Amino acid sequence: MERIVIKFGSATLASTEQIHEIAKKAIVEKDRGFDVVVVTAAMGSTAKEIVKMARQLSDDVSKRELDVLLSTGSQLSSALVAIALQEEGYDAVSLTGWQAGIQTEDMHVNARIDDIDVSRIEEHFAQGQIVIVAGEQGINYSRNITTLGKGGAETTAVAIAAALKAERVDIYTNVDGVYTADPNQVTRAQKLKEISYDEMLELSNLGSKILHPRAVELAKKFQIPVIIRSSEIDTVGTLLKEEVEMEKNLIVRGVAFESDVIRLTVGYDAYSDASLADIFTILAENRINVDIIVQAIIDGLKPTVSFTILKEEFAEALRVLEDSKVSLGFSFADFEIGLAKVSIIGSGMASNPGVAARMFDRLRREGIPVKMVSTSEIKVSVVVPQDEMIRAANALHDEFNLEQALYI
Amino acid sequence: MERIVIKFGSATLASTEQIHEIAKKAIVEKDRGFDVVVVTAAMGSTAKEIVKMARQLSDDVSKRELDVLLSTGSQLSSALVAIALQEEGYDAVSLTGWQAGIQTEDMHVNARIDDIDVSRIEEHFAQGQIVIVAGEQGINYSRNITTLGKGGAETTAVAIAAALKAERVDIYTNVDGVYTADPNQVTRAQKLKEISYDEMLELSNLGSKILHPRAVELAKKFQIPVIIRSSEIDTVGTLLKEEVEMEKNLIVRGVAFESDVIRLTVGYDAYSDASLADIFTILAENRINVDIIVQAIIDGLKPTVSFTILKEEFAEALRVLEDSKVSLGFSFADFEIGLAKVSIIGSGMASNPGVAARMFDRLRREGIPVKMVSTSEIKVSVVVPQDEMIRAANALHDEFNLEQALYI
Repeated sequence: MERIVIKFGSATLASTEQIHEIAKKAIVEKDRGFDVVVVTAAMGSTAKEIVKMARQLSDDVSKRELDVLLSTGSQLSSALVAIALQEEGYDAVSLTGWQAGIQTEDMHVNARIDDIDVSRIEEHFAQGQIVIVAGEQGINYSRNITTLGKGGAETTAVAIAAALKAERVDIYTNVDGVYTADPNQVTRAQKLKEISYDEMLELSNLGSKILHPRAVELAKKFQIPVIIRSSEIDTVGTLLKEEVEMEKNLIVRGVAFESDVIRLTVGYDAYSDASLADIFTILAENRINVDIIVQAIIDGLKPTVSFTILKEEFAEALRVLEDSKVSLGFSFADFEIGLAKVSIIGSGMASNPGVAARMFDRLRREGIPVKMVSTSEIKVSVVVPQDEMIRAANALHDEFNLEQALYI
Repeated sequence: MERIVIKFGSATLASTEQIHEIAKKAIVEKDRGFDVVVVTAAMGSTAKEIVKMARQLSDDVSKRELDVLLSTGSQLSSALVAIALQEEGYDAVSLTGWQAGIQTEDMHVNARIDDIDVSRIEEHFAQGQIVIVAGEQGINYSRNITTLGKGGAETTAVAIAAALKAERVDIYTNVDGVYTADPNQVTRAQKLKEISYDEMLELSNLGSKILHPRAVELAKKFQIPVIIRSSEIDTVGTLLKEEVEMEKNLIVRGVAFESDVIRLTVGYDAYSDASLADIFTILAENRINVDIIVQAIIDGLKPTVSFTILKEEFAEALRVLEDSKVSLGFSFADFEIGLAKVSIIGSGMASNPGVAARMFDRLRREGIPVKMVSTSEIKVSVVVPQDEMIRAANALHDEFNLEQALYI
């Protein structure tokens, strides 16, 4: 039988009324003849409340115990969805991460999935049951409960879909699809009917909160079609897949932006080839996500490396740098706060060398200073003052004619 | 190294402040050189809130899913206690039921422990860690989460103590020991220094809420000393053990009482030897706790069987009887509500045949009608109108001179 995986985010699970509603989404697919797995995030603000309680006990909560606490969130929501389905007359069973066979690495709070043993899910399918999996959690090699961090439930959904060779994943969220830019900030933003994994990956990495890049990466790796859709409005949503043929000729397909970016710069008296690798290795080991990296080795000037991180990881990044100052061998560090990143994304960009130039020119004409630049095959990102972020996004949306309803 | 198991009830875990306080109780024992297991119930009213949420979704919540929900309660409290211990500088680790090796029967919501595999607890001991076990839960043979129902955490504590061959179990609760009667209702009640398993078993079964009979039975079976003590007042508490030598000569050692008792009576046109077994078998299969049973087979009258149950199981008992009316072969059923049970308990009673007579005589003099009677080796229970319960308890406490401070 064909399988489908449906994921519900925290915002769609905030109340028992909402749980009743979303149960119906699973029922529609079951009635169509699919074997259905539902993956749930924690309800509403549960995670926040749990963390608050733990912080009342300690400023330095052990990550292992935090995972024990946090995992109760999706465990609760999974059982509540099962109960709602049973109330509608459907046979349903909830599974925790370890029951669903979600094997993760040993790391806590932000673990990655190593493997999924779907044999138990298959057993429940054989009995005609809808299976609800507590997303965001798994079990590590020491048989401890782990949680998966940001995007955990989405990643679980895609990973299970891959393991089950599912037809597709439906991600129900509080937006009705992927737009050319955030419609709350960019007035002429348009919903996209389809988007490629690579474009979505850039969008996800660039601060669009719709789908976590881990989930997109996994979907791309296993070529799982994913639909982003609203739990409230019954529209088609946006289909995420490998190739988006009909729009291949479009150069820019979206504008993304992200606030609360901080630039860190470290400078060296004596710089070696190892310096660059060393600093980013140590940041990666501490799970600090570094985004744009700019290295400047200019004769007559001290060598520097600049990179951006998010505000929430700033304190931790400073601590790591401070602790490793001697071994990393840098002589000074400074930072700039109040920055934002604005990016344009499009698969057609690689073959259009003039795109970046057009972007920079428009920003120059708008009088918006560009602090840092980063490019890839399918995107160009600039770091600008946070105050100018929205104006920059609107200007670029206009510059590349994204308001034209070519994509719907 | 000697081991000790410490159990904290819901009332002692209602806030993070309380969790900080109780962590210190575990630390005292650890500092004394014990390997310590802490067993936690769910915090305060967590269980009630969870059940409420489930009922919003369905009037007929599946017991399997209810267990998935309920088990999050003690999982949360166990991790919070671990965090509090870590904050005090002690190495601690929380374990869920399945991680702690609590193997239960398949039954949900009210499962019994079949076996405990303490190998993981032993591993943590070997690392010098304090182990916190989420009480009230286990895993069944289908690898589903089960909960243990009333007295679950106490039972878990005693079962783990037995498996670890622990020195003793400390039960921290909101009373400071076992009294000759409920001190809130019987003004002259005295705290007992020691009490035997059998006496405690009768007290527990007779509505004293201090310790669940399942836990007492297990403690008796494995001869584990148990101390009942207060988490707030630092007193010695009451020690529960096999023999209470110095008070052996006392006839009556306590008065217990329980309100909200209902008498059910079923009558037969044709009664067979199988009738009695059949009815109580079917009630037991449905986990309805029957207490006092009185059978009257009197020539010339229709045979009847009367028994008492608690108010909360009344609706379920009626449903079971109704469903099985034909197979059980009874012709009528009636019930009486507004009853209470008052009992006197004492190991010395068996060799004192006059005790029951003295009890009945005193109640007659007080003008309190006795509706049903039940006796065992070490207790006599009577069913009286609920309105008269407290007066009966005080009268019996007086009758057997329990106010004399012989026990302290």
